[in-house]
Amino acid sequence: MQAMNALVPLAEGFEEIEAMTIIDVLRRAGVDVTVAALGKSPVTGAHDVAVSADTELDAVHERSFDAVVLPGGPGAKRLCDDERVKKLAQRLAAEGKLVAAVCAAPIALEAAGVLRGKRATVFPGNALPSAELVEEGVVVDGNVITGRGPGVALEFALALVEKLVGRAKRDELARAMLVTT
Amino acid sequence: MQAMNALVPLAEGFEEIEAMTIIDVLRRAGVDVTVAALGKSPVTGAHDVAVSADTELDAVHERSFDAVVLPGGPGAKRLCDDERVKKLAQRLAAEGKLVAAVCAAPIALEAAGVLRGKRATVFPGNALPSAELVEEGVVVDGNVITGRGPGVALEFALALVEKLVGRAKRDELARAMLVTT
Repeated sequence: MQAMNALVPLAEGFEEIEAMTIIDVLRRAGVDVTVAALGKSPVTGAHDVAVSADTELDAVHERSFDAVVLPGGPGAKRLCDDERVKKLAQRLAAEGKLVAAVCAAPIALEAAGVLRGKRATVFPGNALPSAELVEEGVVVDGNVITGRGPGVALEFALALVEKLVGRAKRDELARAMLVTT
Repeated sequence: MQAMNALVPLAEGFEEIEAMTIIDVLRRAGVDVTVAALGKSPVTGAHDVAVSADTELDAVHERSFDAVVLPGGPGAKRLCDDERVKKLAQRLAAEGKLVAAVCAAPIALEAAGVLRGKRATVFPGNALPSAELVEEGVVVDGNVITGRGPGVALEFALALVEKLVGRAKRDELARAMLVTT
């Protein structure tokens, strides 16, 4: 079986814990993760950590992916305003692929119109007018997975693994990483 | 009051979630964090994410810090073998400053001889012969804080904040980050 692949767009001001947890956990699960800078690499996070992207978004945004996963932080506004991210989320959602976002980043899925009628969550203080807003840590509704903040980043990433690879791999990773919840 | 300062040495093969959680949470708490590459920057983690360090360890290992915090991952072996890390941990421990490590990295504190008689934890499969080994997620014993693995990275980082800045800041951050445990 070919490995699933996922795109993680990285905008200046990304939340470091969220981005790193998504990338790390998906790679542990054997998912082929492409980290793509919205602009130039390296990309600096909200807490001044600069991370090298694998590529630039311009080079990959029209490719085929099994998932797009958006980290939060102040950089979420940039994801929200980016036409490439919007079109990519729309295309993957239309294909039934996984679209996911954590913390403030579900606003970018809202902007793309892919949350319509979906149960979803977002960092407090953000609005998702087209969705059915749920105040839970991680919300899975079909091909849409949303998480509420950095405190649930690991649970969110494990939910992505369950969706893309399966429950057994999710449980195996949770045990290996000594996840206590 | 002057901000507390902490050194986070980064070795090739560091665990990304752990390193990023330590840096992110301490900076959220107002701690002045210096990320120092054992060799050259950027430094590549265990899951192929390259992170830019603030400086190289050679430039700062003899400076004064309120804490040294060691991320785990396969890179922990390099921390363990590094004479600068060993001497720094010994000096800070002798001064009553905070020495902390998560996942496999407590083996570097063991190698430095600063765990003698202390309650401490480490990722399963590693030995801490001089310490009183405790199978808990996060263990605080005086100026030594150890954590067991990536699944408790956030709890570990919040314990560092409680020690360096205080309980109120720890609780404020846990709420702001939507930590559920």
